[in-house]
Amino acid sequence: MKKGKFIGIGVGPGEPDLLTVKAVKALNDVDIICAPKSKESKPSLALSIVQSILDDRESDYETLEPLFPMIEDETALHEYWSRAAELISEKLDAGLDVAFITLGDPTVYSTFSYVFSRIKGLDYETLIIPGITSFTGCAASAKISLAEKDEIMVIVPKVDERLAQILEHGDTFVIMKTSRHSDLLEEVINNDKRDKEVISVQNCSMKDETIFNGFSNNKKYLSTTIVKFKDKK
Amino acid sequence: MKKGKFIGIGVGPGEPDLLTVKAVKALNDVDIICAPKSKESKPSLALSIVQSILDDRESDYETLEPLFPMIEDETALHEYWSRAAELISEKLDAGLDVAFITLGDPTVYSTFSYVFSRIKGLDYETLIIPGITSFTGCAASAKISLAEKDEIMVIVPKVDERLAQILEHGDTFVIMKTSRHSDLLEEVINNDKRDKEVISVQNCSMKDETIFNGFSNNKKYLSTTIVKFKDKK
Repeated sequence: MKKGKFIGIGVGPGEPDLLTVKAVKALNDVDIICAPKSKESKPSLALSIVQSILDDRESDYETLEPLFPMIEDETALHEYWSRAAELISEKLDAGLDVAFITLGDPTVYSTFSYVFSRIKGLDYETLIIPGITSFTGCAASAKISLAEKDEIMVIVPKVDERLAQILEHGDTFVIMKTSRHSDLLEEVINNDKRDKEVISVQNCSMKDETIFNGFSNNKKYLSTTIVKFKDKK
Repeated sequence: MKKGKFIGIGVGPGEPDLLTVKAVKALNDVDIICAPKSKESKPSLALSIVQSILDDRESDYETLEPLFPMIEDETALHEYWSRAAELISEKLDAGLDVAFITLGDPTVYSTFSYVFSRIKGLDYETLIIPGITSFTGCAASAKISLAEKDEIMVIVPKVDERLAQILEHGDTFVIMKTSRHSDLLEEVINNDKRDKEVISVQNCSMKDETIFNGFSNNKKYLSTTIVKFKDKK
């Protein structure tokens, strides 16, 4: 029997129309939609973004929602990912195509990579469909360019001493999920004496999107800060 | 009279299905498609990517193809951009909506930004529709993740001493258009003694896409190299 295909799909930052045509076609075609969620009680954000596409489907589909809790314990996390990979393998072995949907892009800070690394070595056909990243979505909403000419752009997922060290070597910095550590971020950025423009975007491309100058000061999870230094050191 | 709307559209790396649904809707709706080209004799790559969408349009549209030559002379370049902006303004003043199409994303190393900065200050409605960047397209094609967990990702448009300086501070490096300076790139990367994975992609998502381990060694223009260091310094 022919085995199913495993497809990673980036659903973009939030607005359903920011999915690619290729992603929409795949979502209309696969047998299973796999949408991990961080809490049993909390619906998957990626799933809510594609819900209107799924509602318009003419054929039936099944939804898999494995739990990927936000915990630090590496051993426990590995077990969750392995269990999800096993669940997916069972479906692929049964000849069903599985789409794993993920916010933004599947290759950029996505839990997709942990599951994909487990599936990749096995004998399945795979495909990754890229998605609009949060940072290009944010730049588009804020109507600013991220980088021009020879400018070096740096994407930083965590604010710590490594950010302070790399800062002088780059021109544009995108700091993801900034609300988790906004005081330290502000301190590190302000220690750099170059002229700068700081813009933060919360819930990019969603109905409650907020764009403002400066740093994020509340605890919304999907918050991104863009820092553009205006002259090179 | 109502003025037209100026829309920047990222058409992604090359495969027409990698446009977003939002981009396709806009391309079906606008009056004018503006697609800059680098030589009079050379068709615009961005335009060729959306040609099948335009061919399916039911309503008429007009194409503007201003010349943006690949020259170093800043003063001459500014004149080309200003002239393009004037051309676009005339159409907007006449109440026509203009879409400026650009390879990849309009906010990432795009000539769109130079025209947008001239239009932005004027009294027109504007919109930027993000596109799939070359680097997420390349990572999807190569089936690798660009960054995970706390890894810092750096996008570098030019190989020079600044790359050598920033190298030890990041984990993943995307070097754009690498064929222009591949020997120096190889030298700089090999000077870093960390374990690394090097993958190059040429003509990402196009019919003649090529993916290979190591550095690019021919002169194709649309070539990207991804370097992933495997342990932090």
